Amino acid sequence: MRVGVLGGGQLARMLIQQGQKMGLEMYVLCPKADDPAAQVTRNWVDGNPHQEADIVRFMKELDVVTFESEFMNGSLLARLQKQTNCRIEPKPELIDLLQDRLTQKNWLMKHRIPTAPFVSVNCFDDLKQATHKFSKGLVLKKRRFGYDGYGTYILNPKDSLEPYHELFAQSHDGFIAEAKVSFKRELATLVGRSTHGDFAALPLVESHQKNQRCFWVKGPVKHKEYLPLLRKIKSLLKEEEYIGVIAFELFDCQNELWVNEIAPRVHNSAHYSLDALSIDQFSLHLKCITGMKIANPELRQGGFAMLNLLGEGTGTPHWDLSPHLSLHWYGKSENRPGRKLGHLNSLAKKPNQALKAVLKAQKDFSL
Amino acid sequence: MRVGVLGGGQLARMLIQQGQKMGLEMYVLCPKADDPAAQVTRNWVDGNPHQEADIVRFMKELDVVTFESEFMNGSLLARLQKQTNCRIEPKPELIDLLQDRLTQKNWLMKHRIPTAPFVSVNCFDDLKQATHKFSKGLVLKKRRFGYDGYGTYILNPKDSLEPYHELFAQSHDGFIAEAKVSFKRELATLVGRSTHGDFAALPLVESHQKNQRCFWVKGPVKHKEYLPLLRKIKSLLKEEEYIGVIAFELFDCQNELWVNEIAPRVHNSAHYSLDALSIDQFSLHLKCITGMKIANPELRQGGFAMLNLLGEGTGTPHWDLSPHLSLHWYGKSENRPGRKLGHLNSLAKKPNQALKAVLKAQKDFSL
Repeated sequence: MRVGVLGGGQLARMLIQQGQKMGLEMYVLCPKADDPAAQVTRNWVDGNPHQEADIVRFMKELDVVTFESEFMNGSLLARLQKQTNCRIEPKPELIDLLQDRLTQKNWLMKHRIPTAPFVSVNCFDDLKQATHKFSKGLVLKKRRFGYDGYGTYILNPKDSLEPYHELFAQSHDGFIAEAKVSFKRELATLVGRSTHGDFAALPLVESHQKNQRCFWVKGPVKHKEYLPLLRKIKSLLKEEEYIGVIAFELFDCQNELWVNEIAPRVHNSAHYSLDALSIDQFSLHLKCITGMKIANPELRQGGFAMLNLLGEGTGTPHWDLSPHLSLHWYGKSENRPGRKLGHLNSLAKKPNQALKAVLKAQKDFSL
Repeated sequence: MRVGVLGGGQLARMLIQQGQKMGLEMYVLCPKADDPAAQVTRNWVDGNPHQEADIVRFMKELDVVTFESEFMNGSLLARLQKQTNCRIEPKPELIDLLQDRLTQKNWLMKHRIPTAPFVSVNCFDDLKQATHKFSKGLVLKKRRFGYDGYGTYILNPKDSLEPYHELFAQSHDGFIAEAKVSFKRELATLVGRSTHGDFAALPLVESHQKNQRCFWVKGPVKHKEYLPLLRKIKSLLKEEEYIGVIAFELFDCQNELWVNEIAPRVHNSAHYSLDALSIDQFSLHLKCITGMKIANPELRQGGFAMLNLLGEGTGTPHWDLSPHLSLHWYGKSENRPGRKLGHLNSLAKKPNQALKAVLKAQKDFSL
């Protein structure tokens, strides 16, 4: 079976590496021969994963195509799917809906998935009203193309609104304002649904951000609302005929679990699965979209942790790796501060022991 | 660091896949773009891994080169290493010695590693004398280039020697005759030694052959002579300044462990390590030869098993894989009976449970 990935970053790279092991013929469409994913296959197709002509040329040779970013042109992909014999999974009709925070929130509400209250914000007056509605503070988010904190503004009750005049003057994008949630910690999970309608869920994990980017993940985490949430997600995916994996970022509000954001793809918060589970998220996604059998993964050990290795300078990264840690390096040709260069996985009896090991190992890296 | 592999089969493929994860820039020298290893890297170098000009061109760009087969021209490689700035590991000076069963046996004797008694056999008369010496039966083996039972003849006490006249008439190779060992089962292990002189050993495993090829492996296995043997192997590797992994096929003779054969490379009997250990044999080898830290791997679960997927016909292989098994497919372009097409790994509480799972899964494969 010939499987293509649109985009050549680290998520595409790991999809390709795991797909090759499973006996899939893996292809990638991306613009550079030294993009992380293009390095690990003979089937690099030179092109732009956002351009119609390149995507059509790519799809012609393939059985199924998937993507590593939700910032794709969903309506274009939906049209191309109808014109070719190649499936696109998860289905492109959902991409535009999910990449817009407003329609994503409405979608969650429709499926009765708990999430923070929100209002649509299109102008300064809307924002002013939102501050009255959410008197304990709010989070203003660009509806589209925000990521890792970019396009996100936190407004506390006494903050001046003056700087936001300019934001609305400059931006033609819409926004949403969400009630600022007082949560205990951020959690995450990832589930998959196959072409056969089978469902599999990864364990619940805690994810910790630094400068609004994922810094570390540890798990498994227990929460009494996790199973009820999974039941709701399962019926949502069935109703929407969703195929592939989907990631959920969550707020742990003591007695409740609220969904913060969704991504219809493999996700940084599940990178630990490459070492900690009987099946990793990349293999799970590929099994889902190629008609293979799936099942809930088994834990390899009591606890696990993942640490993102983020660029700090511009020199050549080097390291002296502890023999008990598992490194996943992305082969990026350029080092830049804040760039995700790789990740470290660790297993131990308890999640905190695993976390301690990866945090300690940071000093062995010069990034 | 730039690491090259001579040869493009499945062992090279898995070395490359694991090396890429570790942040090594992996290269392969082999003749075809669809060789298993050439498929998984942008750094395929078109050439013959046995030809001087091609090897020299390959080595020029690299820091260290290794190989996937012991059937290399050791003296050629030793000479090329001196001419370039590129190291070759394990050291080429040992290749010729180890690929000849007679010098390999003498080497084992020199290092006091227990092995079956043997004599050199160069003609029919030598064979006749050997049958007197080994009155309980013997195994006649070509000194060089035998593998998977090819070039191996078992002579029981009352067998006619007549057919062997022809063998010596046709063949200019030498042979050795070994006493036929009555063993309980075949075992195997693999150890590694790094550029820093650190030593790491994988668990002892049982390996089962079918038609003189490795069929399945399970483990871990306990044997009271394993630790004493490891101690001897460790001092052998130190004395020889060996760098990289080395595989040992063993006979379990109840109270003794005898070495049957050695291979100075990653080995089929350790493929289980991709799923069952905290570090797999391919990563271990690459760490050894690139100066990284190594340590004894940890077991992920109580028991494991590996099953070789061997070609049975010539059609396109297909399968319906159980979600609890891990498949490692080699991407071979041609299916042939007996050809190693991939392997299946399984983990369970006990080795026999894991073995049962992979044996049962055979019926899900049409090869």
